[in-house]
Amino acid sequence: MRILVDMDGVLSDYEEGFLRRWRDEYPDKPFVRLSDRTTFYIEDQYGEEARPLVRRIVSEPGFISGLKPIQGSVPALNAMDLAGFEVYICSSPLPDYRNCVSEKYEWVEKHLGGSWVNRVILTKDKTLVKADILIDDRPSVCGVEDPPPWEHIVYDQPYNRQEVRKRRLTWNTWEAVLMADAGT
Amino acid sequence: MRILVDMDGVLSDYEEGFLRRWRDEYPDKPFVRLSDRTTFYIEDQYGEEARPLVRRIVSEPGFISGLKPIQGSVPALNAMDLAGFEVYICSSPLPDYRNCVSEKYEWVEKHLGGSWVNRVILTKDKTLVKADILIDDRPSVCGVEDPPPWEHIVYDQPYNRQEVRKRRLTWNTWEAVLMADAGT
Repeated sequence: MRILVDMDGVLSDYEEGFLRRWRDEYPDKPFVRLSDRTTFYIEDQYGEEARPLVRRIVSEPGFISGLKPIQGSVPALNAMDLAGFEVYICSSPLPDYRNCVSEKYEWVEKHLGGSWVNRVILTKDKTLVKADILIDDRPSVCGVEDPPPWEHIVYDQPYNRQEVRKRRLTWNTWEAVLMADAGT
Repeated sequence: MRILVDMDGVLSDYEEGFLRRWRDEYPDKPFVRLSDRTTFYIEDQYGEEARPLVRRIVSEPGFISGLKPIQGSVPALNAMDLAGFEVYICSSPLPDYRNCVSEKYEWVEKHLGGSWVNRVILTKDKTLVKADILIDDRPSVCGVEDPPPWEHIVYDQPYNRQEVRKRRLTWNTWEAVLMADAGT
């Protein structure tokens, strides 16, 4: 079984990284607690005035490479690999690719090790990649292949809970979910 | 019809860029004329002693982003797009990804324009990408999907001419080849 795992919001804690920088850089501006986030894109909740500031933060050098791993994500990936699943890291670059692209590779090398760098797939359209499962925090993942070749399992986050049609997964529950799949 | 097009040696003139830097940086060392190149990897022909010097050149900042387009490649891509082919740029990062990864995106933005940046797919294993045709200068493209989902058309280069089993293509002949395909 081949599994694609998204990075931002699944392996790396994009929301925590953003909020930390936001509060550092704009201590007088309002912020949204992580548990109160309700939109996939941060700027959609922070409002029109904040949009350029939000984008500036996530495009800063060191933002992507400096994200913390989501609790449990690194051991989970290694466990999936050891269990014989064919695991790839499948990520889409931010619109401002300049820093983010190489920093995604750096992040993988730093937190998962050099051998995982060869398992990185960067693509705007994930439906082009042939796999059985995509684990992604985006509520809906679409592209030119419709239906997509994989089943989308939504990685649970406060900002995607309005989407209820798909199976949900956290790193605490992935093992049970995947084992159930392997058995069917 | 979906077509994946490789970058180095197909869209961008990696060999010319290397030779130019090699002769600039090591004017007293021997070099191989482009028409005399017989191995896919440059270092395999330049010999063991030169290996670290070859690798240093191709990993230098500005090497990938500074490559010239291969004559005819940019108009060919735009023509394929206009003709209704679904075209993606599918490239594998060099082992030293640090500069090359973001510079590949820069190259595409500079020579093909911003809209093509969204059509870049970076992956070590190209057999994971679902397409009809892969245009690549590597004599043999293998991966986990065997047979691969696409037909490999070899982009003609002096260093891949020992491989004769597959259809060959240059940007002067692409139009005839692809139109023939579209007709079948």
